[in-house]
Amino acid sequence: MGLTFFYDFASSYSYLAVMRMEAAARAAGVNVAWSPFLLGPVFAELGVGPSPNLASPQRARYMWRDIARRAAQRGLAFAPPDPFPQRSVAAGRAALALAEPERPAFSRAVFAAQFVDRKDIGAAETLRMAAVAAGLDPARVAAGAASPEAKSALFATTAAAQAAGVFGAPTFVTADGEMFWGDDRLDDALEWAASVGS
Amino acid sequence: MGLTFFYDFASSYSYLAVMRMEAAARAAGVNVAWSPFLLGPVFAELGVGPSPNLASPQRARYMWRDIARRAAQRGLAFAPPDPFPQRSVAAGRAALALAEPERPAFSRAVFAAQFVDRKDIGAAETLRMAAVAAGLDPARVAAGAASPEAKSALFATTAAAQAAGVFGAPTFVTADGEMFWGDDRLDDALEWAASVGS
Repeated sequence: MGLTFFYDFASSYSYLAVMRMEAAARAAGVNVAWSPFLLGPVFAELGVGPSPNLASPQRARYMWRDIARRAAQRGLAFAPPDPFPQRSVAAGRAALALAEPERPAFSRAVFAAQFVDRKDIGAAETLRMAAVAAGLDPARVAAGAASPEAKSALFATTAAAQAAGVFGAPTFVTADGEMFWGDDRLDDALEWAASVGS
Repeated sequence: MGLTFFYDFASSYSYLAVMRMEAAARAAGVNVAWSPFLLGPVFAELGVGPSPNLASPQRARYMWRDIARRAAQRGLAFAPPDPFPQRSVAAGRAALALAEPERPAFSRAVFAAQFVDRKDIGAAETLRMAAVAAGLDPARVAAGAASPEAKSALFATTAAAQAAGVFGAPTFVTADGEMFWGDDRLDDALEWAASVGS
């Protein structure tokens, strides 16, 4: 796979990357492994706080303003979720239970529910609506999210992120192990991945 | 003034912004107030650690790799300083003691000494050499750095940064109070400043 895309459904800057990843990767000719993971255990192992973006009120205020400006530049709707960060375990499991080609549309629907419609993505109803929005059977999505395989899969992507040295989200890792952190580095990551090949 | 440019001489990402600010601002038609300040007191007041970029070994390793890649994209030499972060008080005072038009060249010389030649910018000899590289009289620069006015000026820029809500460096603040953080946002900041005017 050309690029592994590590994102957490509760991550604010992951919103910007998720919404444009599929189109950008297609344009760059890069295959992407959509790998939702959990930032919580990563932060815990690193011994850092819950989110660097919330380290101070000044930084949190800036984050929302920065994302709003970036979204506006791209014609993307945006409203800060409340509360933040949300519980992303169920969404991550649901996404990983899907077939890989189904993950981009479902992920975008979940992120839009959270960062546009201000829904609680920890709620089963939100995930059902996201499934419908992505053209998927909501009952199948709910069953997949509740499966032991999905639980194991989310453990595995989180462990893979830790093994790769991930410390935040979104993070992009190329086949040769080059790491890029943040929506700001998405284009660089795709360019690197395209030059390396699969 | 169109844009206030807050940078700390010990800040790694400030290197990327300092080296291109003068040319980028000229191209954008924006006047820039070069305002070296001290991140230390800012971090202390926010109650955060010494540098978010050093919060974990993973993040520190990434920072150096990220800066090396960005520098390479721009044809800019780069070598991580050791130790990091360095003592930036003397450099900040020296820069503020200069006339405003003298600050860009002197600042670039100090950053190049630190991030290319791996010199200790806390050393008086490094600042003397930077003064010479910038076409300035090193004795005048040293005297300026030691003046009570320079000490007060560095207190003042740090207080101004705090009043503006600054939490990192480099940070750019437009005349209408819009804040942009990080070298990644330099172009956005200049565009905003140009649209607002002075």
